[in-house]
Amino acid sequence: MGVVKKSETEPQTIAPGRTRCLAQTDNLMMAVIDFTDGPTTAPDPPHSHPHEQVSCVAAGEIIFFQDGVPTQLGPGDMFTVPPNVPHSIQLLSDHVRLVDTFYPIREDFLA
Amino acid sequence: MGVVKKSETEPQTIAPGRTRCLAQTDNLMMAVIDFTDGPTTAPDPPHSHPHEQVSCVAAGEIIFFQDGVPTQLGPGDMFTVPPNVPHSIQLLSDHVRLVDTFYPIREDFLA
Repeated sequence: MGVVKKSETEPQTIAPGRTRCLAQTDNLMMAVIDFTDGPTTAPDPPHSHPHEQVSCVAAGEIIFFQDGVPTQLGPGDMFTVPPNVPHSIQLLSDHVRLVDTFYPIREDFLA
Repeated sequence: MGVVKKSETEPQTIAPGRTRCLAQTDNLMMAVIDFTDGPTTAPDPPHSHPHEQVSCVAAGEIIFFQDGVPTQLGPGDMFTVPPNVPHSIQLLSDHVRLVDTFYPIREDFLA
């Protein structure tokens, strides 16, 4: 794969106003997600998955929810999610870019 | 760990004008690297490691070098590095923020 240039990639639309581009190695997947539907008035429904996740806010502001704790995060902030732990976000700005990474790769994203 | 807020974290200084903040799960490590020493007039020396790597340019512009091929990358662009493949970057802007992720975790970053 080598390089995934945003301008040359057709993103996946995962919800209205939300698109995702993927890059991966054998065991590691990165998803750059652009949200243009913010700000949102409530958190997204919590979700979980068996994959380990580490994420970074590349642009915009969010509230990250995990274990009942809300934390406001902005550019350069990171969060970690152990396997099977429910988590959610709420968008505080018009445009948010998240860099989500997963181990192992999200086969469900490739379906 | 849960959350790593940039404003509350003492970054590692990895070179003059270059700092790194880390977040990790058991098998996945993310490093947010801020470069303030750009633009650079030549690529960094190539390096390699046995870890799989996927990276995203969060801010700024770089040239990514791998397999002798230079590719200009900007915000939202990603690159992948298989184990033990030499790679390098050159900074094209004053400030660059890279989000590097590795599998397995970089024990050498924790030393």
